[in-house]
Amino acid sequence: MIFLKIFVTMLTAHTIKTLQSLDKKKYRQKYNLFLVEGNKIIKELADSGYEIETIYSINPQNIDFRTTAIEEILPTELKKISFLQRPKDSVAVCKLPENKHLEDTPIQLILDGIQDPGNFGTIIRLADWFGIEQIICSSDTVDLYNPKVIQATMGSFARVNVFYTNLEAYLATYNNPIFGTDMTGQNLYKTSFPEKFSLVFGNEGNGIRPATESFIAQMISIPRFGEIQSTESLNVSMSASIILGEIFSKKSVGMR
Amino acid sequence: MIFLKIFVTMLTAHTIKTLQSLDKKKYRQKYNLFLVEGNKIIKELADSGYEIETIYSINPQNIDFRTTAIEEILPTELKKISFLQRPKDSVAVCKLPENKHLEDTPIQLILDGIQDPGNFGTIIRLADWFGIEQIICSSDTVDLYNPKVIQATMGSFARVNVFYTNLEAYLATYNNPIFGTDMTGQNLYKTSFPEKFSLVFGNEGNGIRPATESFIAQMISIPRFGEIQSTESLNVSMSASIILGEIFSKKSVGMR
Repeated sequence: MIFLKIFVTMLTAHTIKTLQSLDKKKYRQKYNLFLVEGNKIIKELADSGYEIETIYSINPQNIDFRTTAIEEILPTELKKISFLQRPKDSVAVCKLPENKHLEDTPIQLILDGIQDPGNFGTIIRLADWFGIEQIICSSDTVDLYNPKVIQATMGSFARVNVFYTNLEAYLATYNNPIFGTDMTGQNLYKTSFPEKFSLVFGNEGNGIRPATESFIAQMISIPRFGEIQSTESLNVSMSASIILGEIFSKKSVGMR
Repeated sequence: MIFLKIFVTMLTAHTIKTLQSLDKKKYRQKYNLFLVEGNKIIKELADSGYEIETIYSINPQNIDFRTTAIEEILPTELKKISFLQRPKDSVAVCKLPENKHLEDTPIQLILDGIQDPGNFGTIIRLADWFGIEQIICSSDTVDLYNPKVIQATMGSFARVNVFYTNLEAYLATYNNPIFGTDMTGQNLYKTSFPEKFSLVFGNEGNGIRPATESFIAQMISIPRFGEIQSTESLNVSMSASIILGEIFSKKSVGMR
């Protein structure tokens, strides 16, 4: 038996305005809040360190959170506060956590100016799938709490620590090998990866910045098998999938 | 020196209406035409078997096609005939090719009801990257000539043969091993692939149909390394990237 605290309320104009402003980083930081939409993703927050302030829901009986205040709202209200074209069932208002760094994570991803929310979301899902605990982001990487990123992670953001920092300063103090990804690096399939390392992915259009590149010990790339050469490359989501798949393939063989 | 045939014209209302209708399969088949947008992607058609009827362009001097009639149009006209939110420079009106089958392709992908244009586009880009010459699609797979698919391929559609067919009838006559992808199959990293085979990806929501599954010799899946179990899985684009990366990793090692 699950104990629910359900309040049926009408959202005030002030609340609606505040929630609507949370698609902008400036207001997320001002109010120290961000939104997570849909029961399926909200459920992923249950065992995470994330603190939920309120859940607004059109069907509160479908949510099994013990400790969170749930307010029943009307579909017309949900439509006002949702950032989705097709609003789901619920919106959770969550507290922005502090920007913290995990020490001693064996494998880390480093993002140097990734801009597309879908790409960032995919990379977080991949990290979650492969048990990578931390992603280090340059200060200009798209914000994790951007609603498009949060939704693209499908809830995986709750299980991967994302740390924003000045990348140059960070890399200067990082002691394990740093690998980078580009179009001309060493063949991924002929690369050996150590126990502990970081792997850098660059901006979608411009790649890895020279200042970041200066810290990279080995660039790697995915060999092309197609005979006809085209100017087209794989996008960063596809590259990240293939490269992480290969790294964990090698780990898998080691564990066999 | 490149010879250009440039005509400066005003598009007739009839032409605009015809071109606008080409986002629907019904009208693409009626007129036997489809659109490709942007000089960068149109350029990929140069060495392909695709036949371009006309290129409408706001900057025809940037196109280096010898044989195609190029008509200069105004940006306001481009906006009317483009399917993109931000129209690019040119729109090529191409003839729908016949639905043909390539014999004896060593590795094929088979799509059983893939619906999302972005996923299909990504799979075509992957096939192109890895030199896979053919993708077999169930009749209900999203249409290759859907403008969203064409744009998502970034031009790779010009180098991969896509054949639509009744999948059950097709598989009944196919003689090489058929692998499928699901959440419970054999560990991808412990799977050996033969020289010739097909690999099936199922619908985003429902997976592979039972009728298709009955032809599959071996289901494979990507092992999860993350410790915390979540209900979330990888999407078909990510799965296809990882699985193809692994298959070609093994080929790469074989060629070393």
